[in-house]
Amino acid sequence: MTPFIAELIGTMLLILLGDGVVANVVLNDTKGNNSGWMVITTAWGLAVFVGVTVAGPYSGAHLNPAVTIGLAIAGKFAWASVLPYIAAQLIGAGMGAFLVWVMYKDHFNKDNDPAAVLACFCTGPAIRNYTSNITSEIIGAFVLVFTVFYITGAEITPTKVPVGLGSVGAVPVAFLVWVIGLSLGGTTGYAINPARDLAPRIIHALVPIKGKGTSDWTYAWIPILGPIAGAAIAAFLYLQLH
Amino acid sequence: MTPFIAELIGTMLLILLGDGVVANVVLNDTKGNNSGWMVITTAWGLAVFVGVTVAGPYSGAHLNPAVTIGLAIAGKFAWASVLPYIAAQLIGAGMGAFLVWVMYKDHFNKDNDPAAVLACFCTGPAIRNYTSNITSEIIGAFVLVFTVFYITGAEITPTKVPVGLGSVGAVPVAFLVWVIGLSLGGTTGYAINPARDLAPRIIHALVPIKGKGTSDWTYAWIPILGPIAGAAIAAFLYLQLH
Amino acid sequence: MTPFIAELIGTMLLILLGDGVVANVVLNDTKGNNSGWMVITTAWGLAVFVGVTVAGPYSGAHLNPAVTIGLAIAGKFAWASVLPYIAAQLIGAGMGAFLVWVMYKDHFNKDNDPAAVLACFCTGPAIRNYTSNITSEIIGAFVLVFTVFYITGAEITPTKVPVGLGSVGAVPVAFLVWVIGLSLGGTTGYAINPARDLAPRIIHALVPIKGKGTSDWTYAWIPILGPIAGAAIAAFLYLQLH
Amino acid sequence: MTPFIAELIGTMLLILLGDGVVANVVLNDTKGNNSGWMVITTAWGLAVFVGVTVAGPYSGAHLNPAVTIGLAIAGKFAWASVLPYIAAQLIGAGMGAFLVWVMYKDHFNKDNDPAAVLACFCTGPAIRNYTSNITSEIIGAFVLVFTVFYITGAEITPTKVPVGLGSVGAVPVAFLVWVIGLSLGGTTGYAINPARDLAPRIIHALVPIKGKGTSDWTYAWIPILGPIAGAAIAAFLYLQLH
Repeated sequence: MTPFIAELIGTMLLILLGDGVVANVVLNDTKGNNSGWMVITTAWGLAVFVGVTVAGPYSGAHLNPAVTIGLAIAGKFAWASVLPYIAAQLIGAGMGAFLVWVMYKDHFNKDNDPAAVLACFCTGPAIRNYTSNITSEIIGAFVLVFTVFYITGAEITPTKVPVGLGSVGAVPVAFLVWVIGLSLGGTTGYAINPARDLAPRIIHALVPIKGKGTSDWTYAWIPILGPIAGAAIAAFLYLQLH
Repeated sequence: MTPFIAELIGTMLLILLGDGVVANVVLNDTKGNNSGWMVITTAWGLAVFVGVTVAGPYSGAHLNPAVTIGLAIAGKFAWASVLPYIAAQLIGAGMGAFLVWVMYKDHFNKDNDPAAVLACFCTGPAIRNYTSNITSEIIGAFVLVFTVFYITGAEITPTKVPVGLGSVGAVPVAFLVWVIGLSLGGTTGYAINPARDLAPRIIHALVPIKGKGTSDWTYAWIPILGPIAGAAIAAFLYLQLH
Repeated sequence: MTPFIAELIGTMLLILLGDGVVANVVLNDTKGNNSGWMVITTAWGLAVFVGVTVAGPYSGAHLNPAVTIGLAIAGKFAWASVLPYIAAQLIGAGMGAFLVWVMYKDHFNKDNDPAAVLACFCTGPAIRNYTSNITSEIIGAFVLVFTVFYITGAEITPTKVPVGLGSVGAVPVAFLVWVIGLSLGGTTGYAINPARDLAPRIIHALVPIKGKGTSDWTYAWIPILGPIAGAAIAAFLYLQLH
Repeated sequence: MTPFIAELIGTMLLILLGDGVVANVVLNDTKGNNSGWMVITTAWGLAVFVGVTVAGPYSGAHLNPAVTIGLAIAGKFAWASVLPYIAAQLIGAGMGAFLVWVMYKDHFNKDNDPAAVLACFCTGPAIRNYTSNITSEIIGAFVLVFTVFYITGAEITPTKVPVGLGSVGAVPVAFLVWVIGLSLGGTTGYAINPARDLAPRIIHALVPIKGKGTSDWTYAWIPILGPIAGAAIAAFLYLQLH
């Protein structure tokens, strides 16, 4: 697998499993209907585990433009590879969201609230206040990227993935994303990843769903800029401390 | 333990613990009554953990005909061993379902909804639409088998089971099954394993339960063909990428 | 630490944390009141984790007379040490239950249902049927002891505890107890350990609690004999297979 | 990173994620509103995981004055370093609580119960009875510190942090804190850490929140003295046993 394919498939699995759990919890007539925040956050943490397990040895499994940019700022990843990585992440995220729509199609057409339908694709604020919302995304992504630096020694490249532990080595980042969701997801739904939000939002705009509402493009810039800013702060602080 | 016995006992434990949690959650008057999707999916993930812990060093712990067939397609498992493995898996799954009935017998006779009783044995769709249902099973089994290839390096044979980690090495596949349930189980209840569905369905048809309904045989082909198709796609994609 | 002290302290921690979660969930006015089966079973699994972490390198951390007897039957533990181990386990379990009463005393006196109070000490059947109840305990303890044999290679002695993993090596047995609770705890509340049930039942009989009911001694033999029988079956099957 | 900075940042992350989950669960209009005790305790356990992952190799990641004092009593940590460690922990805890206020500011102003607002900063008793409350904190902190001694071999210093497991080695302490919360958190909300309670309580007193109530200073000494006493008992018992 090339790094490009690895990022694409890893991010596809991440979003298939991540947006999939939202569909299971919020759409009508599913088996997991209304099963709560614990279900959503556990699945997102484990979705990262699956993506890292598959992509890790081939691309380092960034699966997130904020991680890629943060590593580049920290001088640990070649700037020339940033755009290809982000492109792969966006394509993969879109494919994952499309598969969620394919899988849950009958449930998407069961007269859901339009906000619930949108939540199966991308994030939205609990209280709309752009200053607070972007602050939330900055803090969430800061915790993500800063801690990832210390989990990995800031060497997230294919050849540096630890192999002795096998995919048990992917447990820490899954636990990290789990707790970010549990603790910091209450305000904006923790995008903390521009690809996770933007590409599924585009899919939401494209696929036919009965009674679909707006894709809320006025909010779309926050889960892009917030996570990148949080990652940049993490990178600068990391450089300061080393 | 021979590989045959290992697959049989491993799958028995898997279904005893997997169908057991459904009985605990959906049957009347149990201690875990109505405790939700988190309980069900966590237990199924850990049920795989137990089955893999016991059978892993002796058979590779496929515990699932879709995994066995996927490995054979990928050229990693001898076709001659496929049928014996599947036979062991079916016998073990039937034994596990029978033990669930033995254990929860008093609760099975407490005037449950017939659909709840059937759910303690095998899967059924949230919305009956065979095209959507088989698509769900294909996607779920694809994620399972494709990721298992990357967890194990597609070398799921007794001698290749990692030993340094002890049964901690079985954690990744448990986490994988956990998230598949959380995220992709909302439509069909994630059989993703023909033995898990077929053998318990036969037991449902055989055991006496007060007010028992149909075993829903018109649906039974979907959790057989869907998972095999998903595993085949995973194997072909894996070969393509290597 | 001598093995005796290790078993005593390990079982004390097990019951303090295990009975503690029941008190938190079922007693009035606690912070975890009515928080459900997931909370109870997760805590019991992790309580085993703590007990094994502390006692493992000193006694092998049986923490359960059924495990001790099962190992002796399998020829892996000296019969001469069986009674001292069981004595330590009973004393430790009683101390743990006493500490739960000390800690939750104000809540014990808040007009709880007498059955809820008893549940903070020992187990009781969801449907009283001694044949079914002892069958449940046999099956639960069989799964526990049989799987423990395969987690440890049936060498649960101080010097054989794996050290490379540190207490991460205690994760598998915690996951095992977690899933037994989730899946097989719905009928009798999964004693699967005579010390876990008997010693706290004695403490229940001794401590003063406002409106305390019976200690249900007519049921007390089931969580003693059932787990021992299940462990014996596990030991015989293990010997058969090796 | 110096040990001082490591303790500061590690404790900041601990409180940001720990107080963050309380804000998510108890404040109005959050995405995790009313999601229960499982969510709160899982996040606190994982918050410790994140703090230990970041600070472990640099300071040993005490993150808790009770741990620092317990180690000093046990003769495993220099008394001269105790005050600087505690200072760093208090500053970090205050910073973490401040960030929670920044992040959830719009939710803090949504007409919450004053007790709920205070719970996002520090602990309080379910039933106010100072004797029982300090007993609870002593027992909880005893379990924490005593078990930490056995997880780490009582060598919690930067150079002794196990490196072979990477941050997987931080899983045991996370599981320990998880179960303490589940089982022993029902009475006082398990401070078990003076810095976790005192510094956020000060922040509560300082920040503006609509309809904010008292900071409950009459209770504040219990989560300071109780954990230190529990840690001292753990240290004395540990010394007795070795």
